[in-house]
Amino acid sequence: MSHLYKHLRIHQVFGANTDVGKTIITTALIRASALNSNRVFYLKPVSTGAPQDADDEHIKRHAGPQKHLVDAHCLFRYGDPVSPHLAVKMASETQGGLKVSVPSDETFVRSVAEHIRKRARVASGPGHMYVETAGGVHSPTLSGTTQLDTYRPLFLPTILIGDSRLGGISSTISSFESLLLRGYIIDAIILFRDEYYRNYEYLTQYFAERGTHVTALDPPPPRLDSIENVANTEKYYSDLVPDTLKGDIFTALEHLDQCHVRRIEELDSMPRRTLDAIWWPFVQHGLVKTEKEVSVIDSAWSDFFSIYDASSGKTSPSQPKSLLQPQLDGSASWWTQAVGHAHPTLALAAANAAGRYGHIMFPQATHIPALKLAERLLQGPGKGWASRVFFSDNGSTGMEVALKMALRSFIVSSGLELSSPEKKNLRVVGLKGSYHGDTIGAMDACEEGVYTCEWHEAKGYWFDPPTVSIRQGQVTVSLPPALSSLTSDQRTIERFETLSHVYDVEQRLESPLAKHYRQYLNKHMRSLQADDTRKLAALIIEPIVMGAGGMIFVDPLFQRIMVDVVRDPALFPTLLPVIFDEVFMGLYRLGFESAGPLLGVNPDISVNAKILTGGVLPLAVTLASDRIFSAFKSESKVDALLHGHSYTAHAVGCQVANATLDLVGRLVESDLWVGAISKWTPEGALATKVWSFWDPEFITSISCLDIVDEAMALGTVLAIKFKDDDAGYASHSAQTLLQSLRLPLDDGSTSAAPGGAPFGVHYRTLGNVAYFMSSLNTPRATIEALEDRLWRLVSSVQRS
Amino acid sequence: MSHLYKHLRIHQVFGANTDVGKTIITTALIRASALNSNRVFYLKPVSTGAPQDADDEHIKRHAGPQKHLVDAHCLFRYGDPVSPHLAVKMASETQGGLKVSVPSDETFVRSVAEHIRKRARVASGPGHMYVETAGGVHSPTLSGTTQLDTYRPLFLPTILIGDSRLGGISSTISSFESLLLRGYIIDAIILFRDEYYRNYEYLTQYFAERGTHVTALDPPPPRLDSIENVANTEKYYSDLVPDTLKGDIFTALEHLDQCHVRRIEELDSMPRRTLDAIWWPFVQHGLVKTEKEVSVIDSAWSDFFSIYDASSGKTSPSQPKSLLQPQLDGSASWWTQAVGHAHPTLALAAANAAGRYGHIMFPQATHIPALKLAERLLQGPGKGWASRVFFSDNGSTGMEVALKMALRSFIVSSGLELSSPEKKNLRVVGLKGSYHGDTIGAMDACEEGVYTCEWHEAKGYWFDPPTVSIRQGQVTVSLPPALSSLTSDQRTIERFETLSHVYDVEQRLESPLAKHYRQYLNKHMRSLQADDTRKLAALIIEPIVMGAGGMIFVDPLFQRIMVDVVRDPALFPTLLPVIFDEVFMGLYRLGFESAGPLLGVNPDISVNAKILTGGVLPLAVTLASDRIFSAFKSESKVDALLHGHSYTAHAVGCQVANATLDLVGRLVESDLWVGAISKWTPEGALATKVWSFWDPEFITSISCLDIVDEAMALGTVLAIKFKDDDAGYASHSAQTLLQSLRLPLDDGSTSAAPGGAPFGVHYRTLGNVAYFMSSLNTPRATIEALEDRLWRLVSSVQRS
Repeated sequence: MSHLYKHLRIHQVFGANTDVGKTIITTALIRASALNSNRVFYLKPVSTGAPQDADDEHIKRHAGPQKHLVDAHCLFRYGDPVSPHLAVKMASETQGGLKVSVPSDETFVRSVAEHIRKRARVASGPGHMYVETAGGVHSPTLSGTTQLDTYRPLFLPTILIGDSRLGGISSTISSFESLLLRGYIIDAIILFRDEYYRNYEYLTQYFAERGTHVTALDPPPPRLDSIENVANTEKYYSDLVPDTLKGDIFTALEHLDQCHVRRIEELDSMPRRTLDAIWWPFVQHGLVKTEKEVSVIDSAWSDFFSIYDASSGKTSPSQPKSLLQPQLDGSASWWTQAVGHAHPTLALAAANAAGRYGHIMFPQATHIPALKLAERLLQGPGKGWASRVFFSDNGSTGMEVALKMALRSFIVSSGLELSSPEKKNLRVVGLKGSYHGDTIGAMDACEEGVYTCEWHEAKGYWFDPPTVSIRQGQVTVSLPPALSSLTSDQRTIERFETLSHVYDVEQRLESPLAKHYRQYLNKHMRSLQADDTRKLAALIIEPIVMGAGGMIFVDPLFQRIMVDVVRDPALFPTLLPVIFDEVFMGLYRLGFESAGPLLGVNPDISVNAKILTGGVLPLAVTLASDRIFSAFKSESKVDALLHGHSYTAHAVGCQVANATLDLVGRLVESDLWVGAISKWTPEGALATKVWSFWDPEFITSISCLDIVDEAMALGTVLAIKFKDDDAGYASHSAQTLLQSLRLPLDDGSTSAAPGGAPFGVHYRTLGNVAYFMSSLNTPRATIEALEDRLWRLVSSVQRS
Repeated sequence: MSHLYKHLRIHQVFGANTDVGKTIITTALIRASALNSNRVFYLKPVSTGAPQDADDEHIKRHAGPQKHLVDAHCLFRYGDPVSPHLAVKMASETQGGLKVSVPSDETFVRSVAEHIRKRARVASGPGHMYVETAGGVHSPTLSGTTQLDTYRPLFLPTILIGDSRLGGISSTISSFESLLLRGYIIDAIILFRDEYYRNYEYLTQYFAERGTHVTALDPPPPRLDSIENVANTEKYYSDLVPDTLKGDIFTALEHLDQCHVRRIEELDSMPRRTLDAIWWPFVQHGLVKTEKEVSVIDSAWSDFFSIYDASSGKTSPSQPKSLLQPQLDGSASWWTQAVGHAHPTLALAAANAAGRYGHIMFPQATHIPALKLAERLLQGPGKGWASRVFFSDNGSTGMEVALKMALRSFIVSSGLELSSPEKKNLRVVGLKGSYHGDTIGAMDACEEGVYTCEWHEAKGYWFDPPTVSIRQGQVTVSLPPALSSLTSDQRTIERFETLSHVYDVEQRLESPLAKHYRQYLNKHMRSLQADDTRKLAALIIEPIVMGAGGMIFVDPLFQRIMVDVVRDPALFPTLLPVIFDEVFMGLYRLGFESAGPLLGVNPDISVNAKILTGGVLPLAVTLASDRIFSAFKSESKVDALLHGHSYTAHAVGCQVANATLDLVGRLVESDLWVGAISKWTPEGALATKVWSFWDPEFITSISCLDIVDEAMALGTVLAIKFKDDDAGYASHSAQTLLQSLRLPLDDGSTSAAPGGAPFGVHYRTLGNVAYFMSSLNTPRATIEALEDRLWRLVSSVQRS
């Protein structure tokens, strides 16, 4: 991940094209840095071209009077003056087809990171470092990934070397935009002062309007460094970088130094400013006592944040640590991440829709991003039952829409003429522990609790559900007292061979437990039905798992039978609309697209959000069957579903969602998934019903520890419930227990974080429940590293 | 705006750089098109370089055996082989400093559009057109704006000519991304097959993964078209484009033809597919009977949609009309637009944040986009009173947050220990016609009405407000009966010299009307206070105008006095928190940033959204004073404001908001604003209190028409209320009356739409109220055009 050292200013040098003078301008910068008495480090990770022209050689030759301060290196070198990926191929061809070993992007980034870390230790006084890329911003590097994507995990501030030739205005601006698209900080643009094309004139003004500094430097003499010209070249450099320490190059240098200082100052100031201006969601500000408790996030990539740690700068000068450290985003940023942070495909999708449409008001209108998204959702989670997609902004509003749909449709189906008070008294039925979002209407569909506000009115009945977990290594369904009392032996748990047995709902429909569930639900629903003043109008469940309620994995058989019961015409002459709140669990969070196929029943209404937009920005959809839709159709405007936020079906969100679903579609078929699934498929067994990215043995083992009450994993989710007498949301037990996870673990080895630096873990807890969540493409190594840390931590508390 | 003709396939040709072979490849395409018996039109709007090398000449020379089918033109020609903006400068210098006249971007686009329209008429059979740009995608055109921004209003599908040289992979991909950022459709990438650098190999695979077609063509012989080489060149073209109609160029041609056909097929299919899959907000689907009633929006730019009109294709072959027509976005896309659609600065801001962060979970975290936005809002609408910013996703959730803040803060301030039923019974006070968003809790803060759902419970008291309008040319405050009865002469209206007199609240505080207001409010608040079971806990108003309630401009004096009254300790021993819902009116929608300074009082809580994110994507903020914030501070987690959507403070939204506020900050100082304000400032008068982009005389005149009840304008908003006995939301009167506005008005002249095509107007109505809204940067010509059309339409109904 990112590198930032107070004493060592590092800049990465990108080119607007090949041959724009990257090495020449970098040489001049290095010479100026050294003249200014800095230790200077030059790194050209990949160099192509004949050795006598090598960039590090050129730099050593022309580093100027203070050249003893300059250290120049290449990590990978190839002979042919072509794009690095091609140089690799050519090298292979020259060697008679022998395969030349090519580092993966990950290994490559680690090599560069390791080099940077070493130099940061070497530089005791003030230092500068320049990391020069090869070719243009999008020239392929060794693996074929282009430069700006390969280097992105390191997130170094950049200098863009502009193109001073004909056409160079265009390539400079386009390169700038490609860098911006990857989130790069662009501190300066430097290019030659070509007096015929005058690109520098145009670009200086263009970028002044965009807040980026442009420096123009005298162009070099022709045929630089040819044999007769070494002296000429040296003269060029000494003119460009005069001993007087005056001139454009020194102005540029000063600007870069200022950018570096300002960046650290800004990071330093952020905790205080945040504590002064921000009101966080779900945070008791009274408990945030110090600036150190504010997570300053400078950037993010893949599953990691890059967080600012001011204390790193205060370590021993001989072992300086980067002020920016990787931190694993252990809650997938509140359950939103699908393909990791800062995915360039999603950034481009957002930009493309913003550039084509901006936002288009949606009533009676259509545009391709929204239409395509609706169609694919109807063929995805809506397959076989949904006919309509309604857009809103987040899971909570999506659920409010679902409620409005259900209430109306119930009334229309029932044929009753209800009075206004009777309508207000319509009730929903659900499960204890439900959570459908923070808006007051969505909250009214849940019990009263810590999350609810003054106006909350619990408009429903909630059953205590049986739950699924691994306890002491055994797959267990735990029965609440009401259900337990129905069993012949009053047992509170039922054991299963594997999780797949629990989730094989069809097989279990004839089991004794199914009979108890049916008997229980029938009886209680019947008594609820008897209350005519508070009619039941909808069944609402979070299928499979109730997230905010405490990562409660509900026995799927119970949910299935709930649906069956409310669809029993003998009990409910008017069908109760069934709402599946799939905001959290849907779209493969648990390894499958939606709950319907697993439960063997489809809802009438369902809601998706979170993963939908790949962890970038808010958007929600409420899917509905044709029966629900028809309840709003008439000839009167006021019968319409009069709900719609200004940015309904915003093109940016829809396009990002489409790109996310494309990426997810490919992941589902990937080796990563096949590998994880196979681990959960016992040898000789048929296909598994459920599986997880988390290792089955890890979960079994952790569930056997004394302080662990139960553990559970499905898809990307791992939940560990600790034993705690004061459980519940107000409890801090899981938080306290795992505290040390936040700190980077430096055991001297290379970590799974990009670049290999030690990393801490950012996690959220729900009272005595700790949960962890990966993206849909998190590498096995990352999950394994977290499993190791969790095991060491939790098992050591065990022993102590 | 966009051009699309069934019989004439048009492509715009962009280059990944200068000198990549744009003209050569275009020549080959033209020759192939002609060989395939198409009429072929070539347009190079700007050409630079010596006349003997001119591109149109080259094309005419090598257009092949069917050259009689080929028509090639330049519109602007300059001699120097440099970037067009520089050619203009140089031409001026050659002419001894004489200023060379340079067309504005607008005029330039009109010339190109006019040329395209003419050729579309000429081509009776199948035809192809190629519009070749100059240099790379970002090379400046005549005015200095870069190519892809200059041509963007025309939104032609594009061919990108890739760069086959060393470094060309990078410039090709970057150019592609810059085009995507502007929303362009990129149908194909074509480049030369250089066998040394093999860029085509890499790019073919790279773009296959991204769904874009790449074609490689044999490179030309060296020194093309030098005198000795004309024959060689001709041979090159005849080999590349063989009479057999076979080979890569024909494959590319077929692909382009297919893209064209598929695009029209897709547009054709969209209404049906939309009617089958989408559930629109606020639309009675039962009233949408035909596909023609679906607005198919292909793209948008500035204040215009580009809409698909299938019937255009069915006009007479001699007068073919583009299938895509401009349509003015007359409601600023439901009140969201600030700087027009598809602003590249906002698209870049979105991409940059997505590429740097993705979404970062917000509790106890901070990142620059959110922190900067919070700080500038505290210095903007929150200046002088707010200390905290809470983020959510839309105006409705922002208001739910505001309600939760107010209720809690009221209870804490009061020191009362309320029971759960007492809390549920807390009430708000506001105005009839209020609307605070669609979620159920926000709705409960409004009266029951058409918008409210089954669960709605009106938790408040709403006063009938006096309103401001222009009636019969006179600035008028209309009094509701309860207020009218307090006046000595029972008068229902009070007249003012100008709107600024009405909005000079401080001046009016001692007026007789102020006395009546105070007397009335005091009395009624006192009686509300007497009901101890339903305590008043907050005052909620939409300052200045109630939008969704029917564009009701409330007398600001009345709102000011409401605030004064609830802050009178004699009446309210516990201060009632005051909430300003500025979702619609805030951030300069009405010409000023927030209502506080105009009313002379600040709220305790305020909400902004809509304009906040420049009309791109959803985000809302709730600002609060320190007193409100403190009510939630304690040592207990459960006392925190437990409200937070997954994407709270998403970096993309915050960054777009920051970019929007930057742009708006510059607009406020612009000539456009100064001009509009001066029109509203009577000669010799001091600075005006209020003003509008709409012409004062226009409003006066329209208010005098018989069918108009009243009119009103502030800032970007124009409202016209028609006389209608069945007024209200269910009324269709304004909709019906203005129906013909939707159709393009073709009076033969050049319209104010980009490109000058006739345009229709997309508008929304609220029952008998028609409203129109511009962006903050809508050119005067656009507003004037709309004023003209409105005048002609409404005054003709008048006469009929």
